[in-house]
Amino acid sequence: MNRRTALQTAGAVAAASLLPGGVNAVEEKSKLIVMVAYQGFTVLDLVGPLQVLSRVPGYRTVIVAESRDPIVTDCLTLLPSMTFEECPQEVAVLFLPGGLTGTVKAMSDPEVIKFLQTRGATAEYVTSVCTGSLILGAAGLLRGYKAATHWSSREVLKTLGATPVAERVVIDRNRVTGGGVTAGIDFGLTLAARLSNEANAQGIQLALEYDPAPPFHAGTPETAPAAITERARKRLTPFLESAQQAAQAAASRW
Amino acid sequence: MNRRTALQTAGAVAAASLLPGGVNAVEEKSKLIVMVAYQGFTVLDLVGPLQVLSRVPGYRTVIVAESRDPIVTDCLTLLPSMTFEECPQEVAVLFLPGGLTGTVKAMSDPEVIKFLQTRGATAEYVTSVCTGSLILGAAGLLRGYKAATHWSSREVLKTLGATPVAERVVIDRNRVTGGGVTAGIDFGLTLAARLSNEANAQGIQLALEYDPAPPFHAGTPETAPAAITERARKRLTPFLESAQQAAQAAASRW
Repeated sequence: MNRRTALQTAGAVAAASLLPGGVNAVEEKSKLIVMVAYQGFTVLDLVGPLQVLSRVPGYRTVIVAESRDPIVTDCLTLLPSMTFEECPQEVAVLFLPGGLTGTVKAMSDPEVIKFLQTRGATAEYVTSVCTGSLILGAAGLLRGYKAATHWSSREVLKTLGATPVAERVVIDRNRVTGGGVTAGIDFGLTLAARLSNEANAQGIQLALEYDPAPPFHAGTPETAPAAITERARKRLTPFLESAQQAAQAAASRW
Repeated sequence: MNRRTALQTAGAVAAASLLPGGVNAVEEKSKLIVMVAYQGFTVLDLVGPLQVLSRVPGYRTVIVAESRDPIVTDCLTLLPSMTFEECPQEVAVLFLPGGLTGTVKAMSDPEVIKFLQTRGATAEYVTSVCTGSLILGAAGLLRGYKAATHWSSREVLKTLGATPVAERVVIDRNRVTGGGVTAGIDFGLTLAARLSNEANAQGIQLALEYDPAPPFHAGTPETAPAAITERARKRLTPFLESAQQAAQAAASRW
């Protein structure tokens, strides 16, 4: 058995036999929350919202990717529950997590873009966290919309025809976008209240004991010590250059 | 090829070829942060700390489980990077995520308890988030220590000989424990500063844009609307009864 066959078999087995939605997965009739996975994405971008949204009554979260191959995120390996091809056209929520190099690749991946354009055209909500908004943008789904993204990447959103807003969660018509990585929990609770109601969102918040107490005040470029912000900006420069290139290329294809 | 072989092969391939630590995995010489996975755990309990700790210089995060079989968490399926047997004795950080039914099972699983007792005896830090502390407690690793856990489960900690403390992060000698689910991010940053230094922890906080803004004030039993807290307590009663039974059984084995 070669590597590819082994991975595909494992993915298929996991999907068919092991409750891919997890032990709390609910009935097939629920409306679909489609979380798109791709190689190298930032795992907390997806898991923050997933942990919240998987508990919204009447909805079912699925992790959808180009194939059933394991997805190697920035810090763990997971199995998708469904391929792009297997995903129904009717989607309640289309969600994109962000990342760095993997996100830039996804911005130029025709399979990803086609999937987003077809499902995004009819989805009730088109959503993202962190630089996931750059992939939505590359698919043309944020043209003329206000949107959030990671603090480093707001200029790239402009190239994609969107208006960046420096907030944890930005809602513009049916686009709901979150800021960098950890904003996914605030995003998830905000969206949960819209999909269901405020009481259910509060119940989820209590279950997840979401009463944050960051030990430092370094969560934004404005509050972090200047030297730390400077170092972060320098580290992110190559990513931002490649993201801008991918954004320009995407916009030229519209 | 039967199912078991397929999954083991996929796990082995993922571990050997696909950078199980994720695309940011670093050299083998780094000190080990061992994150224990078991069927049914709450995925954000692990992913919050993982996202932080995977970025601490000089350390390497690994997800360790009884076998290489896929782990079905409460809302996604992931592949462990190492088995208990393969895990070295020398561990810098031993970490346990929490959950509900799966956590109670792990409290009584001799393989899990043996692994925790052997690695916990020499680990530099013995840690957990949420009800992960109940598994540490069942292994006898919290006797005489102050510890945090999910708000619902503090009484169970007493049965395990620990003193529960209602804080996001509790440090008692080399035991570092976090409160419910989302406390894992506060826990991760606190531990990152100890393993490395405050500047590196702040750099990670900035990269993850951790400047939380919960849309509601329902994160603790005290701040949530009374009806929501009451409903949550009722829902958790069967879990707490089985956790107390598992705790009594564990304590009787010491």
